[in-house]
Amino acid sequence: MHTTARSAQPLLITMGCPAGIGPEIIVRLFAGDSIWRPEPAYPVAVVGDIKTLGRAARTLGADVRFAAWQPGQNLTAGQIAVLQVDNPGTDKLQWGQPTAVCGQATASYIETAVSLILAGQASALITCPISKFSLQQAGYAYPGHTEMLAALTGADRVHMMMAGPRLKVVLVTIHEALKDVPALLRPEAISACIHETHASLVRDFGCTRPRIAVAALNPHGGEQGLFGDEEARIITPAIDAVRNELPQAELSGPWPPDSVFYQAVQGKFDVVITMYHDQGLIPFKLLHFKDGVNVTLGLPIIRTSVDHGTAYDIAGKGLANADSLAAALDLARTMASNRSAHEG
Amino acid sequence: MHTTARSAQPLLITMGCPAGIGPEIIVRLFAGDSIWRPEPAYPVAVVGDIKTLGRAARTLGADVRFAAWQPGQNLTAGQIAVLQVDNPGTDKLQWGQPTAVCGQATASYIETAVSLILAGQASALITCPISKFSLQQAGYAYPGHTEMLAALTGADRVHMMMAGPRLKVVLVTIHEALKDVPALLRPEAISACIHETHASLVRDFGCTRPRIAVAALNPHGGEQGLFGDEEARIITPAIDAVRNELPQAELSGPWPPDSVFYQAVQGKFDVVITMYHDQGLIPFKLLHFKDGVNVTLGLPIIRTSVDHGTAYDIAGKGLANADSLAAALDLARTMASNRSAHEG
Repeated sequence: MHTTARSAQPLLITMGCPAGIGPEIIVRLFAGDSIWRPEPAYPVAVVGDIKTLGRAARTLGADVRFAAWQPGQNLTAGQIAVLQVDNPGTDKLQWGQPTAVCGQATASYIETAVSLILAGQASALITCPISKFSLQQAGYAYPGHTEMLAALTGADRVHMMMAGPRLKVVLVTIHEALKDVPALLRPEAISACIHETHASLVRDFGCTRPRIAVAALNPHGGEQGLFGDEEARIITPAIDAVRNELPQAELSGPWPPDSVFYQAVQGKFDVVITMYHDQGLIPFKLLHFKDGVNVTLGLPIIRTSVDHGTAYDIAGKGLANADSLAAALDLARTMASNRSAHEG
Repeated sequence: MHTTARSAQPLLITMGCPAGIGPEIIVRLFAGDSIWRPEPAYPVAVVGDIKTLGRAARTLGADVRFAAWQPGQNLTAGQIAVLQVDNPGTDKLQWGQPTAVCGQATASYIETAVSLILAGQASALITCPISKFSLQQAGYAYPGHTEMLAALTGADRVHMMMAGPRLKVVLVTIHEALKDVPALLRPEAISACIHETHASLVRDFGCTRPRIAVAALNPHGGEQGLFGDEEARIITPAIDAVRNELPQAELSGPWPPDSVFYQAVQGKFDVVITMYHDQGLIPFKLLHFKDGVNVTLGLPIIRTSVDHGTAYDIAGKGLANADSLAAALDLARTMASNRSAHEG
């Protein structure tokens, strides 16, 4: 039976590094699952390599079928739609052994998916993990996935949001030594982060009046300068600078870091803007260790990502868990639906 | 009916600032409560002022009776035992209006309670909140409660533990600007913190083989020096330095900060040693916003504390909640019981 899904453009899952756990978690997701049903409102296609996915399916003993898919075609119920991207040498890859071939293939999946979404032929991107190392071996000198996506879409400033059912956090700085964080904080960067977060909450998360809490940097918010003055010098000015531009937002802060997440989880805030990696990730992972989704704000496309790596040590062993991919796909679908309604 | 409790020395609650919420939460604790029962294994006495407690009781409309108590006396069931400490002027205090009289009274309660415990006439100290400001007005130039207790007991190094049913954290640095934290970390201070934590877990928390996790400072633990080298330079040497001295401990780290608390809550660790205030307090307060207890490690006496302040804005209004005091008392009782069994 062939069924069609005309109501919306498909969501695209990129397969990530072909030697990592990406192919496996994709197969596991579809093999076990409620989303692989006829006439879904938001159909899903994989951008990757059918043979690699087939090897992963055999590894798992999964009873799944694949169908080559091209943009604009209807999707076939009961089969995993794959936009095949050929790369010489992928048939000789070993699980857990990344090479330059992996990097080239990884990049090709991402480039293909991004062009389709930018061309309006797909609605959102869900990314499986990649290896910076193999990307670099193939000549792609990006520090990471997100930077590559920013370059491909022409985005000049992106922010990382971690989203879960109980808590959402956005990071002002990410992979920095703790000692470098205070000097890296700039009012304009914090203001831009607030702006981008606000835009995404309105457009993608269905918040009409986003309640945005900005965390302080120092314990107790610095206690009137007694331990730290970044609140008065940097964070408060950043909040004040955008307050008038976002009249429909409930924007507040800087809040003492040790209570703001509790308040958010109690329902007082929709999101917490955090100054450094662990300030946001410690509370987030405590609540959402298994179902957290990485969302990239600031791109012209919707992008969610699994929150784990390629896990080469377990690739091909049938041990990888698809929960994070399922959560990333679910959230991308919700975001695409909200954005479509918002722009509707 | 008079009953006695000969089996153990009483726990002492200091009343804290007489113009704050201390008197109220003490009355509320006893008025509502399961601990105020005949023949408790660990009886409780308040060190403070009966008239002030009486005023608090009238404010609350609480039906409680007070009995003047002296060290060595039996406690009377159905009455709140109070070791009366007179201070001129306390009868004229207004709720929420701290003065030098408050500071003098506050200090006298603490000094009295500490001498009794040091003399073996009481088993543990539970402190209600104080005001550093009024203490200083009365000529006591301590930066805080803990420093005063350290001075009174001759302790040379103390550490703050926050303890709750799901998570325990100990802080290596406390009230410091975030930018100052990396330079303040010293291997010997971290080693001492591990030692003290270990001793307390064995003696006061009934752990025979303490599982102590030490958190890293930087995101991902610095990722092999890519963002931060304090793990290699400071934290790992600190752990290695004490490993041989604590053969019965399961000592591990430095762990990536964004996963170690989740692992602890899953039951993998008994305690997490944290490098800075918010690293420990963010996850702790997320889980234990209302039932967290502040424990001071390194004193020769058992000391727990409510984890809130004097709350002058609501003092005398019947709004203060006694949950934190109840948790602090419960934990002090458990610690006293464990210590007594340990010292057998």
